[in-house]
Amino acid sequence: MSNEHAIGFMDSGVGGLTVVKQARKQLPRETIYFIGDQARLPYGPRPSEQVRTFSWQLANFLLKKHIKLLVIACNTATAAALPDLRANLPIPVIGVIAPGSRAAIKASKQHHIGVIATEGTIRSNAYRDAILTQDPNEQVLSKACPKFVPLVESNEYHSTVAKRVVAETLQSFKQSGIDTLVMGCTHYPLLRPLIQNVMGSGVTLIDSGAETVNDVSAMLDYLDIANTSATKRYPDEYYTTGSAKQFETIAKDWLELPDFKSQHVDLGSE
Amino acid sequence: MSNEHAIGFMDSGVGGLTVVKQARKQLPRETIYFIGDQARLPYGPRPSEQVRTFSWQLANFLLKKHIKLLVIACNTATAAALPDLRANLPIPVIGVIAPGSRAAIKASKQHHIGVIATEGTIRSNAYRDAILTQDPNEQVLSKACPKFVPLVESNEYHSTVAKRVVAETLQSFKQSGIDTLVMGCTHYPLLRPLIQNVMGSGVTLIDSGAETVNDVSAMLDYLDIANTSATKRYPDEYYTTGSAKQFETIAKDWLELPDFKSQHVDLGSE
Repeated sequence: MSNEHAIGFMDSGVGGLTVVKQARKQLPRETIYFIGDQARLPYGPRPSEQVRTFSWQLANFLLKKHIKLLVIACNTATAAALPDLRANLPIPVIGVIAPGSRAAIKASKQHHIGVIATEGTIRSNAYRDAILTQDPNEQVLSKACPKFVPLVESNEYHSTVAKRVVAETLQSFKQSGIDTLVMGCTHYPLLRPLIQNVMGSGVTLIDSGAETVNDVSAMLDYLDIANTSATKRYPDEYYTTGSAKQFETIAKDWLELPDFKSQHVDLGSE
Repeated sequence: MSNEHAIGFMDSGVGGLTVVKQARKQLPRETIYFIGDQARLPYGPRPSEQVRTFSWQLANFLLKKHIKLLVIACNTATAAALPDLRANLPIPVIGVIAPGSRAAIKASKQHHIGVIATEGTIRSNAYRDAILTQDPNEQVLSKACPKFVPLVESNEYHSTVAKRVVAETLQSFKQSGIDTLVMGCTHYPLLRPLIQNVMGSGVTLIDSGAETVNDVSAMLDYLDIANTSATKRYPDEYYTTGSAKQFETIAKDWLELPDFKSQHVDLGSE
């Protein structure tokens, strides 16, 4: 494994692209291999044992491509599989929950933090545990938002339907007194303008995935595995277990890459 | 070594307290052992070989106290000694230059970054190298500010003299077109209001030391060595090789701890 090898990113779908977007900005020399498991999303309602199994399949797909570091760019998969993958993979593994929790503690002035995420992530209590372990003085209010991922994946995140769903879902949160809201699912930043609009400008939104890129960069520095060549040796590669066409539509918009290309892959045949 | 053991912080003087201040906020459960080498500051004008020797003495003092992680809370010492300490110590070692560089790249919109630091740090080119290695598109303008550390250490950082010195030193920088300025010395955040006033509100100031606490937190999470007990097992300890009284005067003001106490230590007798 050389320092020129890729960083692997895995997600249930397009949400992980919010992490990729930040990585492309902050780490322009690093090659990105991404896989989204569109065929089996959403992960949120699934039992954690099943999410763990899927996570291993995604990780193994990327490992065969000789990645030097793995980012679990999915909160549900981080909650279900991070300790297991970290303990058993031969490369560093970074999840999105610790960086998001840390950024929330840093941002909150009133020590009152909201967390929105999938059912699986909320059920795991991973955010609450991570925040309170670091700072027992925080008050944490959590809410599962099962309708958000399907809105994003069906490319409706700019729609009036999305606007209504976000407003309804976050209604009860508005008067809660939180000053910081963790978008604890990597799909949610695509809904960011709608979420900010409902919560008001007084609430700081935390993009867990974007925060995670700081950890990735810190780990590359610490382990001395950053790419120091003038250019990328390997081009980026994007895979989806679902429809490449649908994946590309959202990726082109979100990453602002008109020439974005992806490949369909069938994990069952791996 | 248990997870309840302290994090060690070392600096030439009081500058490292800017890192400690952020650590106390972000990592309230972690015990802090700090040593400042006031007897031999400033480090900036010294040959790097000598700074390396002093750094080893400070590190060994903290290591004997069973720290679980070492933060070189000094840019000059990071530039001179980080690779050596990291390669040879049995615990993780974190410096302030990589986190500061990373935050500057993230903050700069015009890709035009200024760096102010001691002569030793500027001479090492450590910031320029770290920034350009990560993103070759950045333009970096550096300036040594040898008068700043003595101003802070003599407790004159609120004075009109400080105001004049900062204005004169940064004069040539003002029209340079930078949009982000790295305070590449942990002493400089004590001069932050004066620096911001000279540079104007359009320039984002980066506090390398404060940014470093994110890396510390990421490393504690990654290595699973964060303190998860409800409280600190060991109280914080602060040491200086110089006058405890003078050190305490600044520390009380900066950390907002009226009861702050420190101990004098003579490294020569260790």
